[in-house]
Amino acid sequence: MGTMKAVVKTKPELGAEWLDRPIPEPAASDWVVVKVRATSICGTDVHIYKWDPWSDSRIGGKALPQTLGHEVAGEVVEVGPHCKRIKVGDFVSAETHIYDPGDLTTMLGSPHVGRNMKILGVDFNGCFAEYFTLPESICWPNDPSITPEVACIQEPLGNATYAVLGEDADVAGKSMVITGDGPISLFAIGVARAVGVAKIIHFGKYDFNMEIGKRMGADHQMYTNKTTGAERLEAVLDLTGGNGVDIALEMVGSQDSVDDCFNMVRKAGRVTAFGVAAENRLPIDYNNGIVFKACQIHGINGRKIFDTWYRNRNLLASGRLDPTPVITNVFKLEDYAKGFGAMMERPRKSAKCVLFPDQAEYEAAVRRLGDH
Amino acid sequence: MGTMKAVVKTKPELGAEWLDRPIPEPAASDWVVVKVRATSICGTDVHIYKWDPWSDSRIGGKALPQTLGHEVAGEVVEVGPHCKRIKVGDFVSAETHIYDPGDLTTMLGSPHVGRNMKILGVDFNGCFAEYFTLPESICWPNDPSITPEVACIQEPLGNATYAVLGEDADVAGKSMVITGDGPISLFAIGVARAVGVAKIIHFGKYDFNMEIGKRMGADHQMYTNKTTGAERLEAVLDLTGGNGVDIALEMVGSQDSVDDCFNMVRKAGRVTAFGVAAENRLPIDYNNGIVFKACQIHGINGRKIFDTWYRNRNLLASGRLDPTPVITNVFKLEDYAKGFGAMMERPRKSAKCVLFPDQAEYEAAVRRLGDH
Amino acid sequence: MGTMKAVVKTKPELGAEWLDRPIPEPAASDWVVVKVRATSICGTDVHIYKWDPWSDSRIGGKALPQTLGHEVAGEVVEVGPHCKRIKVGDFVSAETHIYDPGDLTTMLGSPHVGRNMKILGVDFNGCFAEYFTLPESICWPNDPSITPEVACIQEPLGNATYAVLGEDADVAGKSMVITGDGPISLFAIGVARAVGVAKIIHFGKYDFNMEIGKRMGADHQMYTNKTTGAERLEAVLDLTGGNGVDIALEMVGSQDSVDDCFNMVRKAGRVTAFGVAAENRLPIDYNNGIVFKACQIHGINGRKIFDTWYRNRNLLASGRLDPTPVITNVFKLEDYAKGFGAMMERPRKSAKCVLFPDQAEYEAAVRRLGDH
Amino acid sequence: MGTMKAVVKTKPELGAEWLDRPIPEPAASDWVVVKVRATSICGTDVHIYKWDPWSDSRIGGKALPQTLGHEVAGEVVEVGPHCKRIKVGDFVSAETHIYDPGDLTTMLGSPHVGRNMKILGVDFNGCFAEYFTLPESICWPNDPSITPEVACIQEPLGNATYAVLGEDADVAGKSMVITGDGPISLFAIGVARAVGVAKIIHFGKYDFNMEIGKRMGADHQMYTNKTTGAERLEAVLDLTGGNGVDIALEMVGSQDSVDDCFNMVRKAGRVTAFGVAAENRLPIDYNNGIVFKACQIHGINGRKIFDTWYRNRNLLASGRLDPTPVITNVFKLEDYAKGFGAMMERPRKSAKCVLFPDQAEYEAAVRRLGDH
Repeated sequence: MGTMKAVVKTKPELGAEWLDRPIPEPAASDWVVVKVRATSICGTDVHIYKWDPWSDSRIGGKALPQTLGHEVAGEVVEVGPHCKRIKVGDFVSAETHIYDPGDLTTMLGSPHVGRNMKILGVDFNGCFAEYFTLPESICWPNDPSITPEVACIQEPLGNATYAVLGEDADVAGKSMVITGDGPISLFAIGVARAVGVAKIIHFGKYDFNMEIGKRMGADHQMYTNKTTGAERLEAVLDLTGGNGVDIALEMVGSQDSVDDCFNMVRKAGRVTAFGVAAENRLPIDYNNGIVFKACQIHGINGRKIFDTWYRNRNLLASGRLDPTPVITNVFKLEDYAKGFGAMMERPRKSAKCVLFPDQAEYEAAVRRLGDH
Repeated sequence: MGTMKAVVKTKPELGAEWLDRPIPEPAASDWVVVKVRATSICGTDVHIYKWDPWSDSRIGGKALPQTLGHEVAGEVVEVGPHCKRIKVGDFVSAETHIYDPGDLTTMLGSPHVGRNMKILGVDFNGCFAEYFTLPESICWPNDPSITPEVACIQEPLGNATYAVLGEDADVAGKSMVITGDGPISLFAIGVARAVGVAKIIHFGKYDFNMEIGKRMGADHQMYTNKTTGAERLEAVLDLTGGNGVDIALEMVGSQDSVDDCFNMVRKAGRVTAFGVAAENRLPIDYNNGIVFKACQIHGINGRKIFDTWYRNRNLLASGRLDPTPVITNVFKLEDYAKGFGAMMERPRKSAKCVLFPDQAEYEAAVRRLGDH
Repeated sequence: MGTMKAVVKTKPELGAEWLDRPIPEPAASDWVVVKVRATSICGTDVHIYKWDPWSDSRIGGKALPQTLGHEVAGEVVEVGPHCKRIKVGDFVSAETHIYDPGDLTTMLGSPHVGRNMKILGVDFNGCFAEYFTLPESICWPNDPSITPEVACIQEPLGNATYAVLGEDADVAGKSMVITGDGPISLFAIGVARAVGVAKIIHFGKYDFNMEIGKRMGADHQMYTNKTTGAERLEAVLDLTGGNGVDIALEMVGSQDSVDDCFNMVRKAGRVTAFGVAAENRLPIDYNNGIVFKACQIHGINGRKIFDTWYRNRNLLASGRLDPTPVITNVFKLEDYAKGFGAMMERPRKSAKCVLFPDQAEYEAAVRRLGDH
Repeated sequence: MGTMKAVVKTKPELGAEWLDRPIPEPAASDWVVVKVRATSICGTDVHIYKWDPWSDSRIGGKALPQTLGHEVAGEVVEVGPHCKRIKVGDFVSAETHIYDPGDLTTMLGSPHVGRNMKILGVDFNGCFAEYFTLPESICWPNDPSITPEVACIQEPLGNATYAVLGEDADVAGKSMVITGDGPISLFAIGVARAVGVAKIIHFGKYDFNMEIGKRMGADHQMYTNKTTGAERLEAVLDLTGGNGVDIALEMVGSQDSVDDCFNMVRKAGRVTAFGVAAENRLPIDYNNGIVFKACQIHGINGRKIFDTWYRNRNLLASGRLDPTPVITNVFKLEDYAKGFGAMMERPRKSAKCVLFPDQAEYEAAVRRLGDH
C-alpha cells in the first residue's frame, strides 16, 4: 500500500495540486482498483478546476481535498472479494454514472439516467492519478486492440454514439444535422459517418473545429456565426429536397441551435436533445416544431449501460470508427496544468486532451497520434 | 342528381345556412359519394361557424359558400371509375387528412403528417349534408356492428388513441397523466383504460367533464383550477412511488399543462405533445424536463392511416372501448344551430355533439345513448 | 438460527419428504432470507418430484437432498451486509433466473436469457419451506395490496405477460390466437384481455381449462382435439376478415400448435414461440410461414427483469388483471403431496396450485378464492 | 405509337425472342410509360427463360407471348391522366410489387407483403424492352447522380438492405453472419459495411463470389463446402467472445445455412429469414434456436415501400455504398441471350448482369465499371 501521484483539488479556488497520496484499496467489497494508463479532461473537470459556482454548489468546499477526473482507461490491479465479473489484469474503461440498483428507472433498464446517481471524480476521488478505485458495476472491459488514449475517451465518445443512434438506433441511410464545436459534436460526426448516416451537415463557429469536423466526415458545413438561421434553413432544405433532415442533433443548448434543429428536422423526424441550456427554461416552437411536425424528441445524456459501450468497442476494434482527430492535445499527467490550459481555450484551439501517467505510454501515444 | 339539404357557410361572419344543394357526383375519378348517417361537430367547425381570425386566414371569404364538417360516417352510394377498394354499400368513416402521395413523409409511411395536406370541410365542401364526396384514399370501412354515432366520432377518437399509444404503442401496465377537459382528453381516458394503462390520472377543470372522465375510467382526478402545480406534482409522486408517471399526455397546450407533463413524467418516460399552444413559442424546462430526464417526446396530430383506425375498429367492435359517455348532445342535422350552441358552451356543459340527417337514425341513437 | 419445516427431495425417485431443516442464513453477503407466505407448484417441480430423466440429467442424484420450489412470495427477515436495495420487512416475490452479471446478453439488457444461469430450487435449495435464501438481485418488491397467492404466481404470470406483449408490447387493439391448456396459456388470456387485445381466440382440449379460459376473457374458443387444423384455420380467417390474426402465441410446443400459429398469423404479423417441443427439431413451413409471410417471431422464455414485473405489479394492484381463476387448488404446505397429486392431473382437472406454510394465511386465501 | 424491340417469351420452352412490339401506352389512367436505360436479370427471369415447372404453374403457357424483366431504371416519357406524383422526364426505378390498396396488410403499412400482389414481368409485360408501362404507385424517383446500371439493380439491392436492416434498422456496431453466394448476399455485405455493422462474417462456396464478397467488405469468410457446421460455429464463437453474432442473415434456404444461422446467433439476437427453402417444411431447432435463445426472427421479402428505397438512394448518392463489384456482366439488350447464358453459370462465374437498350449507355457503363 505505497504512495502514488494524483491531481488533487485542495482548495475552493482555481487550480489543483500534484500530491503524494496513498494507493487506494477497493472502497467496498465490490469495488476494484485500476492502474491508470490514460485519462482525459472533460468540461466538468474544467468547471471543478476553475471552481466555478456550479462546482461550489455541486461539490462544496467541505468535500475537499478530492482527486479530479472520470474519463479513464487502465488495468485492474485489485478486485474486492465480492466482485463477480471483473478480474485482475482486465483492461477496462469507466462508465461515469454509478447507478442505484434500487431505483425504478434503473430496474426498468435505463440505469444511466436513474435517480440517486453518484459520479466518479465529483462525488468521490477520481482518476487523475496513478491509481484509483471504482465499483465493478461500472467497469467496461475493452478490446485489447484499442489504444489507451482511445479507450479513455470512450466515455464522451459514448455520449456521441448514443446521441447519434438515439433510443432506437434507426439511422442507416438517413440525413442528419449535427450542431456544435465541442468534442462530442466532433465525435458524433465520426460516429454518424461510421454507422451509415448518408448526409451529415455540421454547424459550428471556429475554423479549428470545422477542420476537425471535416476530417471526421462531415459532408456539408456551415458557420453559425456567419449565417442567419433563415440562411441555414434554406441551405438544409436545398440539401434535402425541401423536406428537412431526418434527424437533428442539438448539441449546443443555445436558443439558435435549438431553433435550428426544430426548424430543420423534417416532418415525423427526430431531434436529439443533448445540449444543456444556460437557463433551464427555453422557448421552443411547440406547435410547428413538435406537435404539427409530429417530431420525435429523444432527450439524451450519458450512455446506455452497456449497449453503447458494446457498439463502440466493436466499431473501434474494427477500425470503422477513428476518433483520434478529436484528440488535439496529449500530456504527461504531471503536466495537467498544461492540459487544463489547453482545455480552457476550447473550442477555439483545442478539442480533447489526454493525459498519461507513464512516460512510455505517453510517447507511444504521441507517435500514434502523430501519424495522421 | 337531385338536391339535398346542407349546412353551408355563405358569409364571412357568425353562422351557417340550411340550404338546398345539388347531390354531388364524385369530384374525381377516384372519389366516392357518401350518404351521411351521422356527423359530429369538431372544434374546427366551431371556429369556422364563428368565423374567427383563423378561419379568415385559413379559408378566406372567397372560398364561400362552402359546406361545413369533416367527422362523419355513412354509406357509399357512388364510386368513381378508378376506385380500387371501396364499393357501393360500404359503411365508411372519413379520415380528414387528404394526403399528397408524392410527399416524402407520406412515401415513408406517415401520410397523416405529410406536406400539402388538404382537409375535408376546410379546403372543399364538407359532410354537414345529406351527401358529400371524398377521395377513396381516406375512406375507412367500418365494422357493421358499430353504430353511426360511434362510427362518426372515430376521427377525434383516433386522435385520442394515437396520443395514448404514441408511436410505439408500448403502454400496457404503465401509469399515465392525461390533461384536459376536451372530448379528446375524455376519449383518451377511455382508450387508456381499454388498452391496459394501469394508473390513469386525469387533470381537468370542470365538474361536467370530470364526471365524464370518471365514467371513462380515470383512477384519480385533480382540478387544475383548485390546485397548484406543486400540489399536483406531489400528488402524482405519491401515486407513483416518488418516480413520476411513465407517460404524460399533454392535451391542453397551456404553459401549466406543459409544465405539469414535463415535471411529472418519470426519468426515461414519454410525453405526448398533442395540445396546441396559443402562442407557438412556449418555454419548456429543456434541461430538467428533456435532457437530464432522458424524456421521449412524441409530437402527435391526426391519426395513423390506417393503423389507428384498425385498432379502434377492433376495440369498438369488441366492446372493449365505449366512447359514448363523451357524446353529450345529439340533434337532427337541421338543428345544427343547437349543436353549435352546445359546442360553444364547451367544455363546461358539453363534450361531443352528433348530428343525424335522418329522423329514424336520430331516434335510434337517442334510445341507445339513453341507455347508459 | 432455529429449525423449520421444508419439502425436501432426498432420493432420486418419486416423492419428497417433510423434514426439519435449519433456518438458512443469507448464502452470500448480497443474499437475503425470506419467510415464505405462499409458494406455488410449477411443472418443473413436478418433473423433479417424479424424478424423470430430465431431473436426473439436470440435477442429478448427487445434489440431493435439496429443497424444492421457486415460485414464491414472502417477507424479508434478514439481509446480507452487501445488499443495496432490499430491506428487512419488504414483501417480495422471486424471479427464478439468477443471472451472471458478466454475461454479454445480461450486460446488453436481457439478463433473463443470459448464459450461466442458475435456477432457484434447481441449482440449490428452493422455497417449499418456511424460510429460504436467495440473491437480492432477483427479489422483486410487491405492492402491499397484492395477496400472497397472487404475489407468488407472478413468476408464471410473468411468462404469460411477456409472451403476450412480446419484445415490443405492441398489442393494443389487435387480434390474437393463444394455444394451450396450461396455466400460462390461461394467464395469457387474462393478460391479453387486460391490455386491450381486441379479439382473443383460445385453442385447448379440456373442458376444465376451456371453462377457465372463458372466465379469463377468451372471446372465442376451439377444441383442438375435436377439429382439424384446416377447420381451425377457416374459423380464424372467418373471424379476421380473411387475414389471419395479428399475433399468435404458441404455448404448447406440438407440431399441430406450431403449424396452427404459422398458418393463422396474418402477413407481417407476429408469432410468439413459447412452447417447448418434445424433440428439439421441429419442421416449420419456412417459406410460407416465415419468409413469404414476413413473419416476426419472438422467442420468449422467462420474464423481462424487471420490466415485466413492473407492468404486472401495476396491472394487479389496479385490479385490471385478475389471475385468480387459474388458481384451482390451495393447500397447507405440509399437504404438498396433495398439491403434487393435483398437479399430476393437469391439465384435465387442475391448473395452478398454491401452498401456504401458515394456517391463517391458508384460510384467508381459501376465503378470498372462494369468493369468485 | 411506333414500334420497339423487346425480349419476348413466346413459347413454353427454353429461350426468348427479340421481336418488334408496339411501344406501349399507359395501361391504365394511373400508369406511366418508361424508356428503359438499364435493366438487369433476376433469378426469376432465368426461371422463366428456362421455363421450369415453377414458370409453368405460376405464369402458364396461355399468358404468352409476354415480355420478360422487372429490374429496371429509365426515363418517364408518358404519364396517364390520373397520375399524381410522377412527371414526364423523371428518372425512375421500379418496385416490382404492385400492391392492392385494399389489402389489410397494405393499409397497415406493409404493402410489400400484402395479398393479391401483381408482379411486373410475371403477371404482365416486363421491362426487357425499349419501353414498358407500369403503375405510378411503384415508381421511385432516383437521384440524378446515380448511374443507370446502379439505378436498375436497386431492386435486388433493396432486398439486401431490408435483410440487413430488418424491421428495426438496429444494426450499428453489431456483428453479423451473412450466408450465400448469390448477388443479394454480396450486396448485403456492402450494405452491412456501409451502415456500420462492425464484424461481417461471410459464408459461401465459390472463389468467384468469395472474391466479390471480400471486395464488398467482408471481414471474415468461410467456405461452407470445405468446413463442417461445427467448425463454422467454433470459428464464429471465437470471433465473438463465445457469444455468437448479434444478427444472422439466412440467404440460402438450405438446411445447413438455416442451422448455421440459428446455431450462431447469440442469445436475444436476430435471424433474418430471407432464403427460400427447396421444400417448404424445414426442420428447425425450435427449442434451442428460438425459444431458449429468445431469438428474434424477421421474415423478409421484397423491400419496404418506400423506406428501403429512400435509404438506398441516400447511401448510393453519397457514395457510402458502392454495389458495382457485384455487377459482373453487362451487355446490349439485344445480346440478352449472352446475359442469360452468364446468369445460368451463377454463382460460379457471374453475379449480376445488366442490359442496356442503347449503345452509348452501354459503352459508358463499360467504361465506368472497368474503372474498378
